[in-house]
Amino acid sequence: MATQVVLMGLGAIGRLIARAVLTRSDLEIVAAIDLDAQRVGRKLSDVVDAPAPDVIVTPDAGAALKKAQHGVLLHATGSRLDRVEGELAQALSAGLAVVSTCEELSYPWLRHPEIAERLDRIAERRKVALLGTGVNPGFVLDRLPATLGNVVGRVDRVQARRIVDARTRRLQLQRKVGAGLNEEEFDRGVDDGTIGHVGLMESAALAALGVGLEVDEVDEDIDPVETDEDMQGEGFTVPRGGIVGVHQVARAFHDGKEVAHLELTIALGAPDPRDEIELIGDPGIRCVIPGGVPGDKATAWSVAHAAPLVASAEPGLITVLDLPAGR
Amino acid sequence: MATQVVLMGLGAIGRLIARAVLTRSDLEIVAAIDLDAQRVGRKLSDVVDAPAPDVIVTPDAGAALKKAQHGVLLHATGSRLDRVEGELAQALSAGLAVVSTCEELSYPWLRHPEIAERLDRIAERRKVALLGTGVNPGFVLDRLPATLGNVVGRVDRVQARRIVDARTRRLQLQRKVGAGLNEEEFDRGVDDGTIGHVGLMESAALAALGVGLEVDEVDEDIDPVETDEDMQGEGFTVPRGGIVGVHQVARAFHDGKEVAHLELTIALGAPDPRDEIELIGDPGIRCVIPGGVPGDKATAWSVAHAAPLVASAEPGLITVLDLPAGR
Repeated sequence: MATQVVLMGLGAIGRLIARAVLTRSDLEIVAAIDLDAQRVGRKLSDVVDAPAPDVIVTPDAGAALKKAQHGVLLHATGSRLDRVEGELAQALSAGLAVVSTCEELSYPWLRHPEIAERLDRIAERRKVALLGTGVNPGFVLDRLPATLGNVVGRVDRVQARRIVDARTRRLQLQRKVGAGLNEEEFDRGVDDGTIGHVGLMESAALAALGVGLEVDEVDEDIDPVETDEDMQGEGFTVPRGGIVGVHQVARAFHDGKEVAHLELTIALGAPDPRDEIELIGDPGIRCVIPGGVPGDKATAWSVAHAAPLVASAEPGLITVLDLPAGR
Repeated sequence: MATQVVLMGLGAIGRLIARAVLTRSDLEIVAAIDLDAQRVGRKLSDVVDAPAPDVIVTPDAGAALKKAQHGVLLHATGSRLDRVEGELAQALSAGLAVVSTCEELSYPWLRHPEIAERLDRIAERRKVALLGTGVNPGFVLDRLPATLGNVVGRVDRVQARRIVDARTRRLQLQRKVGAGLNEEEFDRGVDDGTIGHVGLMESAALAALGVGLEVDEVDEDIDPVETDEDMQGEGFTVPRGGIVGVHQVARAFHDGKEVAHLELTIALGAPDPRDEIELIGDPGIRCVIPGGVPGDKATAWSVAHAAPLVASAEPGLITVLDLPAGR
């Protein structure tokens, strides 16, 4: 029997998740939740622009969650755990397993240990699992290094970088990495959390733990990337010298020693886009994905593929390190 | 408490496994089994040339297996499942989980469905798990492609190649790939199973299944690699035109359509050694490990890292596709 799926959040990522789910015959969408007035009351098939079961988008989470039995909520409403805790708790309390794109949920003990504890307790009590995943965090800079760690010995440090040419991404992401802002606007955006990628520190912790290292501290730097030639965004141009994106470095430490060093560059025109993972140790190993794993689509696929696994996983709050290799 | 470990087989790979286990504080070697008269009766620390617990190598499997409680047997005595079935069955019957380097055990349903069924039944009855793993089969051409499958959509075909310069490997492996043989000797070796890598067909099946494809047929070709210049092995030279190694292609099919295509080249002087994995689909993904994962050592590490996971896994015969990412 197919696993019953409830969707929550039908923004750009949520719609991609819906389409990914529709390709899997072992998943069946039974309800879809969204608060946006432009989507409420419409047929899911119209909202996601694909043939879909006869489901009307509703703002009523309580009623929608009741439609899934032993099913799973696929959740894509936000990056910050403190803002989505209520939504996750409600779904778990209703007896649904949850897979969420919430970046901070990928390793929630880092920034929100109390929320992690509360959600874990509900999940254990209702005997369902809860997972935060995606491509980044969730795969390229954490799950993949951890997987590579299985064929090497002592690891001293995980070193990885992901370089994304933001010209290949949607306007919303180009704006989120600060393309076209001046320095003051960029700094203000970093301070209020609207500029920059969420989840790199979580990846650093996961990557280190995944290869068997301990972590007692994680930090992060965020800087603007400036262009040395005029650069074209989606409907805007950044002149030479202007800001075209973001460069972030997250580092995990144990006893003052760096055990993970992750770099992320997302910028219009970023050269040689790729994912590159290196485990420094004896012996070391290096792995390259030329071009890099595509962002939004890969996140949607990873959520859809995780759905049946999480629906049948041991109860509680889990991470991508607990997921099996096969989809 | 540390997981108790019994070693069986202290050949080149078995000794590397022992040394890998000795680096993990959560594993404790309590017994070591080997039939070789040169090793029986000697201290384990002498045999593996590393500080080790006070264990004497014994040929008596029955007595040795009794020393581990809820522990795990790390088994490295052979590639062919029909020759090692008895050893595996004995350990499972004694209540030990088993991790084995037996290549055919990585996906035993392919060539030995009846043996797989028998071992699975014993494992289920004794509530322990049984896994065949290593670097190849077990990682590069199966578990890694399956892991990559989590971030892509429809996969039409898994395409992967592993190229190993056998000059970097031990004499035993150079001989096993036919280096220095003439054509007649090579062909005879392929026929009697002494020449060539075991496990590529198993990897092809695992890789396809791991990305969600079905498999109803698997085949394999084995051909010699000839050198166009004089080539140096461990203590022997192959003149220009001679055989320096093996090129194997394993293919998995579903309904006559190729769903996995794996190529393996192990030859003295093989150019551009690497592991390269490609998932052909929408979207596709390509991943390269320059130089390739080192063979014997990586196998030993993968066995050691799998030991605690398999000791606590659900009972029965499992595959690397069931293992979590983190070690």
